[in-house]
Amino acid sequence: MDFYPVAIEKLIEEFAKLPGIGYKTAQRLTLHVLNLPREEVVGFAEALVKARGTIKYCSVCGNYTDSDPCSICSNPNRDNSTICVVEQPKDINTLEKVQEFNGRYHVLHGVISPMMGKGPDDINLKNLIKRINDELKEIIIATNPNVEGEATAMYISKILKPFGVKVTRIAHGIPVGGELEYADEVTLAKALEGRTEL
Amino acid sequence: MDFYPVAIEKLIEEFAKLPGIGYKTAQRLTLHVLNLPREEVVGFAEALVKARGTIKYCSVCGNYTDSDPCSICSNPNRDNSTICVVEQPKDINTLEKVQEFNGRYHVLHGVISPMMGKGPDDINLKNLIKRINDELKEIIIATNPNVEGEATAMYISKILKPFGVKVTRIAHGIPVGGELEYADEVTLAKALEGRTEL
Repeated sequence: MDFYPVAIEKLIEEFAKLPGIGYKTAQRLTLHVLNLPREEVVGFAEALVKARGTIKYCSVCGNYTDSDPCSICSNPNRDNSTICVVEQPKDINTLEKVQEFNGRYHVLHGVISPMMGKGPDDINLKNLIKRINDELKEIIIATNPNVEGEATAMYISKILKPFGVKVTRIAHGIPVGGELEYADEVTLAKALEGRTEL
Repeated sequence: MDFYPVAIEKLIEEFAKLPGIGYKTAQRLTLHVLNLPREEVVGFAEALVKARGTIKYCSVCGNYTDSDPCSICSNPNRDNSTICVVEQPKDINTLEKVQEFNGRYHVLHGVISPMMGKGPDDINLKNLIKRINDELKEIIIATNPNVEGEATAMYISKILKPFGVKVTRIAHGIPVGGELEYADEVTLAKALEGRTEL
């Protein structure tokens, strides 16, 4: 039971619904908002509604977009022969920052996880199969290197085999700038396994 | 440089403006919002604008309120003989939860802090002096027990002396349920100093 006016209580509740935001943080954010210039608060509110209202999934790759198909799928300068498969739209952002990949993307919106009750039908996989054509030469699977990510990568590669398209997996190994001493055994084993000739 | 549609970028920026929210958290919150039902996002936006729009400071005590004077100042069942002085509106909430104090409050909206360039004129002190009348018997200073809070308490008590009103300070000591072993020396010294007869 708190002793704030209703409008404050309500905003604290709204903030507390966000992931990773507890009651105390929600209270702190709310009191911060009360001290902001009114137009800034209105700007924040508009950004919320606008983001939710205008952003949809790209019908081709499943990325977030404000136009369909998304800017990557509709870019004629990108390579049609490679598709990089990622778990979430934010992974596209991460990869694009590296500026190493110029192909297309495909977003699974999750991974196969029997523990969480998520099977192959719960991820955006059927649309990936529809994208296979003569132009496509390689599918790079860039799911996260954890149990679910690996299992999903395995499953997808098995499903795609019959279509005769080359399926690759991003490399595991010691991070650049890291030290052998601090690498865990599984990473080290993967680094040895994936050694390349100099 | 990121590769999100403009509406997403904008919302990430807005979240990142909030205190304690970095870019990565802002990105996570934004992607969470995109997956919420539209009416929930609108509800959040409305709560923001409404809180900022309807909440003002009580002209008597300086607390946040949607009606002026606030519910505590206008409550006839509360004791006019005591005013508890706090730093922030949230401190009123904390004290009200304890249900031990039935007097009035006064919010300073800060503390005197020469380091931060905040002097006596930068806190809500003049209005406190205006509230001194024959009915008022005691002013309890409940600023935080840190350097600025203590200095502010000292300053206020000095200012109020000439008016002949009793000025008290909340007690310092070992927290209930705490252990002597883990108390710092200053707290322990204060606990000894403030000992009471059994």
